[in-house]
Amino acid sequence: MSSLSLILLFLHLNFQLDGKSTKKLIYTEKFMAKNFCSREENYSQWYNDIVKKADLAENSSVRGCMVIKPYGYAIWEKMQRQLDQMFKDTGHSNAYFPIFIPKSFFSREASHVEGFAKECAVVTHYRLKNDPDGGGVVVDPDAKLEEELIVRPTSETIIWDTYKNWIQSYRDLPILCNQWANVVRWEMRTRLFLRTAEFLWQEGHTAHATREEALEETDKMIHVYADFAEKHMAIPVIMGVKSPNERFGGALDTYCIEALMQDGKALQAGTSHFLGQNFAKAFDVKFLNQKNELEYVWATSWGVSTRLIGALIMTHSDDNGLVLPPVLAPIQVVIVPIYKTDEQREQIAAKADTLVQQLKALGISVKFDNDDTKRSGWKFNEYELKGVPVRVAIGPKDMENNEAEVARRDTMEKYNVSFDTLVEHIQKLLEEIQQNLFNKALKFREEHTFKADTWDEFVDLLDNKPGFVYAHWDGTPETEEKIKDLCKATIRCIPFNNPQEEGKCILTGKPSHQRVLFARAY
Amino acid sequence: MSSLSLILLFLHLNFQLDGKSTKKLIYTEKFMAKNFCSREENYSQWYNDIVKKADLAENSSVRGCMVIKPYGYAIWEKMQRQLDQMFKDTGHSNAYFPIFIPKSFFSREASHVEGFAKECAVVTHYRLKNDPDGGGVVVDPDAKLEEELIVRPTSETIIWDTYKNWIQSYRDLPILCNQWANVVRWEMRTRLFLRTAEFLWQEGHTAHATREEALEETDKMIHVYADFAEKHMAIPVIMGVKSPNERFGGALDTYCIEALMQDGKALQAGTSHFLGQNFAKAFDVKFLNQKNELEYVWATSWGVSTRLIGALIMTHSDDNGLVLPPVLAPIQVVIVPIYKTDEQREQIAAKADTLVQQLKALGISVKFDNDDTKRSGWKFNEYELKGVPVRVAIGPKDMENNEAEVARRDTMEKYNVSFDTLVEHIQKLLEEIQQNLFNKALKFREEHTFKADTWDEFVDLLDNKPGFVYAHWDGTPETEEKIKDLCKATIRCIPFNNPQEEGKCILTGKPSHQRVLFARAY
Repeated sequence: MSSLSLILLFLHLNFQLDGKSTKKLIYTEKFMAKNFCSREENYSQWYNDIVKKADLAENSSVRGCMVIKPYGYAIWEKMQRQLDQMFKDTGHSNAYFPIFIPKSFFSREASHVEGFAKECAVVTHYRLKNDPDGGGVVVDPDAKLEEELIVRPTSETIIWDTYKNWIQSYRDLPILCNQWANVVRWEMRTRLFLRTAEFLWQEGHTAHATREEALEETDKMIHVYADFAEKHMAIPVIMGVKSPNERFGGALDTYCIEALMQDGKALQAGTSHFLGQNFAKAFDVKFLNQKNELEYVWATSWGVSTRLIGALIMTHSDDNGLVLPPVLAPIQVVIVPIYKTDEQREQIAAKADTLVQQLKALGISVKFDNDDTKRSGWKFNEYELKGVPVRVAIGPKDMENNEAEVARRDTMEKYNVSFDTLVEHIQKLLEEIQQNLFNKALKFREEHTFKADTWDEFVDLLDNKPGFVYAHWDGTPETEEKIKDLCKATIRCIPFNNPQEEGKCILTGKPSHQRVLFARAY
Repeated sequence: MSSLSLILLFLHLNFQLDGKSTKKLIYTEKFMAKNFCSREENYSQWYNDIVKKADLAENSSVRGCMVIKPYGYAIWEKMQRQLDQMFKDTGHSNAYFPIFIPKSFFSREASHVEGFAKECAVVTHYRLKNDPDGGGVVVDPDAKLEEELIVRPTSETIIWDTYKNWIQSYRDLPILCNQWANVVRWEMRTRLFLRTAEFLWQEGHTAHATREEALEETDKMIHVYADFAEKHMAIPVIMGVKSPNERFGGALDTYCIEALMQDGKALQAGTSHFLGQNFAKAFDVKFLNQKNELEYVWATSWGVSTRLIGALIMTHSDDNGLVLPPVLAPIQVVIVPIYKTDEQREQIAAKADTLVQQLKALGISVKFDNDDTKRSGWKFNEYELKGVPVRVAIGPKDMENNEAEVARRDTMEKYNVSFDTLVEHIQKLLEEIQQNLFNKALKFREEHTFKADTWDEFVDLLDNKPGFVYAHWDGTPETEEKIKDLCKATIRCIPFNNPQEEGKCILTGKPSHQRVLFARAY
């Protein structure tokens, strides 16, 4: 807790002794204190505080499962709408597959079950009954399933079991399905949005007649994700290929986008897998090709999740709270009236109503907060905390001068703008903020991307200048594993079009032909 | 299987003996046969055939869980978009709550657990491991949960456990949340869309300061559902109150909308529950009212599910396949070219492209099917089967005459329209089809709604003229139960603004003040 908030808490207690009449005032003052950690003080606490105080999500009574609150969910809905459109524009359709997967399905694809699928929720019974001893309900022991069902941690197995019936000939291909769903992975250490037992995501699952077509799809979708991250989330990302150690279980190749957070740790923001014929073989999915020969089908899968909200927070937010790129902000503009008399209030409200209509007509989401029970100072703080990109304040003096005060959340700048040009100013400002957030994040990444040529340099950078580190690696899984054990850094990816350069592995000194991208990661 | 399809299957076999070259032709012919039951032959089989042949959904490898295929899901997406907008227009926000509910939560509200929540999926373990005997994966016995988790059959308990932390004062009320989610109820006899172990739905959960406000919300939402059913699904519904026997477990009152299917059985299409303070008491959710007194919070919940797709099918479809109201049709208009030469094909394609642009500009979803590997006859049949409301066929002769053939799916009428007026004709036609489907369904319901004054009359109607039956009932749960046991009819609802009329209960002869709505139901 900062010293400011301690002082205000003190005031709070004292005022309360004076009686109820001042309660509203105190309520206001108390919330004006930004009583949460700065990034420097405690980055992890800062993150948790933002999630909670901006009303995005909270932990539930079920261990590891979160409640996504309306404001947080509104951001997810904006992401969904945009991604869904991008999927449809690239020829995909949505479908829905069962939440349960028979246990035996996981054993079918050896590297899939090896890769993960171990920590998951297992359904063993299908009925409750009243406790004969009167202690509420108990599981009915007579209602045991013959085969246990797993709550999907991902859906390749159940989907390929389904595709088997959909595919006979090359005419049935490609199949380009996407599913919006919840999935469960029983994580032991959870953090809101970043790692939770249940999370929301989309998973695309496509089936193709040729290897080339499947590879093209894998590539197309990682580019869709990169586009979404950069243009909508304002997060610069590096596209690349995962090293074998970091590949998805069952994939021949995993493409990913990697972003850098403000604490210098990397975050994998999306993956697209080239699955080869692995799942087709596991579920016996063959098709008659144009030459009338039976062949196994080629597959891809790709996904992003509510984890993206964690990336969004950690890329842009500051010590005053959440900062949102305008494209994804549930409220893009808030108008706060400042008045003393009823007459002032009415005049400002009339002006604000006109503004609201004009902005809405441009497709801008705007809120006029004329709640009389909260002070304008409380509102300023609240919308700052919630990352509303543009705040417009209108007071009696502004009305006289035919202008309003505009405050932008990204730079915290404030200035006056004439009502005559306000609407178009705001429209341009939203675009400018979107671009500025991207530029700022890109600059941060550039300033936190290094090269290391020796082991000491490498470890020193990780410890003292956290960020991305380009370094030589001898290409073996053993070395990658050893590096991870020694300093917790992993290969985030081998970037697409990676420059080739002769060098020596930072750990083993063995020859290497390219630097790969290392970082400690979420 | 109809006799027509038997003949064609026969042709199919014979042609196949001739060799591969005719395969495409046969493929076409085979699909031209409407090889599914008529409603009269076997209504239940007819329903299943439509679901499968229109590519809406199918059973999965997991007992009772369905796969919603892209075409079926596209209808659900259209429903979702519309409902979501209606919820937002009435002040609601979306949020997301955990899929798992601790077992003990179900014991908290006595009538809730009594009402249902018995047949559900129970998670007892959280880890798999490799079988030491090499038989794939097994459940790790060391990973047993302390308390079992139930996959939500509905979310009142977990949501009220959450609301407890959100509500302190009247200023925190109302809370108006909705959730789009999957739920699981372990049904023994399942039918695609109508009754499946897992299904998709939305569930609204609201919290209010007063009884009046909660009642108003309950009423508001059943009206939203009725509006949606009638204006978007073109299904006339009767709004009313459930009898105590049919109430949702934990509710003080359940409002519902009831629709009549073409086999004369009723289908409950949506419910809105007034929960009183039951869940607030069970989860100890109190608030400080304006008089500074602690009070329990008032609650409602309301939901509709993918079951609505079953209602949609059974209300409008015919022996030629699916019939969709234009507002919910994924493809509203299909354009099929008919040609022999490449030159004809190109000319028609150019014309069709213009049409597509013009229709899209009006917000009409249109598909130009210029697939060269399928015959126009196959296409006609396919889009009929899939319920595309309007088909436009353009052949060389039509081009000469500056016109196209328009076929409407609802009446199966065909006629020619000049290209000069085609676009506006289609726009009006879509509205007309929407209205016609509603009128037709309403007429059907009126023709299948009866009054019974004696028990014999009542049973005779149910057996020989299935439909809605208005009859007197003595108002006791015992009589309702007995009627259900004797003839499988239940009270669908006591309609809002039900005319009061003195009479005698059809079963017991005891006095009654109003007729209530009976039917056999899905």
